[in-house]
Amino acid sequence: MSTVDIEVVLFDTFGTVVDWRTGVAAAVGEFAARHGLDLDGEEFADRWRARYQPSMEPVRTGERDFVSLDVLHEENLRAVLGEYGVDPGTIAPRELTWLNEAWHRLPPWPDSVPGLRRLREHVLIGPLSNGNLVLLARMAKHAGLPWDIVLGSDVTRAYKPRPEAYLRAAALLGLAPGRIMLAAAHNGDLHAARSAGLRTAFIPRPAEFGPGQTRDLEPESDWDLVASDIGELATHFTGRTWTADGHL
Amino acid sequence: MSTVDIEVVLFDTFGTVVDWRTGVAAAVGEFAARHGLDLDGEEFADRWRARYQPSMEPVRTGERDFVSLDVLHEENLRAVLGEYGVDPGTIAPRELTWLNEAWHRLPPWPDSVPGLRRLREHVLIGPLSNGNLVLLARMAKHAGLPWDIVLGSDVTRAYKPRPEAYLRAAALLGLAPGRIMLAAAHNGDLHAARSAGLRTAFIPRPAEFGPGQTRDLEPESDWDLVASDIGELATHFTGRTWTADGHL
Repeated sequence: MSTVDIEVVLFDTFGTVVDWRTGVAAAVGEFAARHGLDLDGEEFADRWRARYQPSMEPVRTGERDFVSLDVLHEENLRAVLGEYGVDPGTIAPRELTWLNEAWHRLPPWPDSVPGLRRLREHVLIGPLSNGNLVLLARMAKHAGLPWDIVLGSDVTRAYKPRPEAYLRAAALLGLAPGRIMLAAAHNGDLHAARSAGLRTAFIPRPAEFGPGQTRDLEPESDWDLVASDIGELATHFTGRTWTADGHL
Repeated sequence: MSTVDIEVVLFDTFGTVVDWRTGVAAAVGEFAARHGLDLDGEEFADRWRARYQPSMEPVRTGERDFVSLDVLHEENLRAVLGEYGVDPGTIAPRELTWLNEAWHRLPPWPDSVPGLRRLREHVLIGPLSNGNLVLLARMAKHAGLPWDIVLGSDVTRAYKPRPEAYLRAAALLGLAPGRIMLAAAHNGDLHAARSAGLRTAFIPRPAEFGPGQTRDLEPESDWDLVASDIGELATHFTGRTWTADGHL
């Protein structure tokens, strides 16, 4: 496809831009060592992440008022600690917060920072994530992600794949959804983005869920673009240079 | 004062970080030349800016539903063209948009980019402006302002100096207002920020309104900090390095 009409490229972040499994496992390892606990970091990360989608569901359906992902992450963390026989009430609050904010300190995939730097020469870029604004801003500062704009699910007050998550982002950007592309490693996210009118780019991340990953290894639809990483995605935009003077 | 409790420094932008009068006057000059009009760029900029505060007032009082600053700027632009005897209906829409978006392309003061780069090593930084998100994001990209976070009045849906403009920003940042400092060249903005519980820094910009400026030449209260420019402001934060690990 031609990318000439695309003004903004937004990114799913967890899994697409940053490696949550490695980052969370490392934090769990440090936490376990400090507290004399026997925890498998990667298994812990997988269990914590397994609660991610279900925990957003009551907010999506309207059964629960909007709460930020930091809050859901902490509820899920307490539950996973319980699965391991650790009473979260015995852990100092600042230690729990530190572990919960592992999601603020995730490492980028090796191509993410150089790829985003190239891409931002051509278009506006930002996250379109279920993360909240502060989580995403601190993640970006920590990892060096050069976003132009950071939206946050607490700005749109909607969790993907609800259509409002995509449509409110487009409204804030002042753009028709078709001028915006979502880049994601998850086919489900791209299906929802396309239903909301956005353009779509698939970037496979076959190690996101660890060595046994079976899902999202291939594009499952005719997405507008498929790229092996963010650097390759950027090559589709090299025909023009971003300028604030773009309307003339 | 000690800045040890300050986690985020937010900036007024028009006048404090960017030189709106010079930027708008230059765009008006280009516009006038392209259209064979006789317009004094600086006088036009002053007249356009004179309509800025009054145009937000009906939104502040609730008499008018929230509309973004881009919309208000365009209404005010049409009015000012009318004062000069130019019927905006005779100007191509894309030309009007280009001129209206002069506010997206404002030049930074000379100390702004190096000062912000220094400051962001120590704290999170962002604008707290009446500008809308897209205006602020494009301004930042154009001018090279290294914000960590861009809020926008269309995110808080409130125009300064309404308390909601400050308090909703604090809520999105997940911080008590006292952990946030507003830096501004305008005493009125700082009074409102202080009333909302924020810390305050005054940075005089004696050339903002041109050579005859009479207002905001001096701090009019005992603001927490007074700095000659953003670089000097940064020196008050040099005792610590920002880290996503900040809670331990």
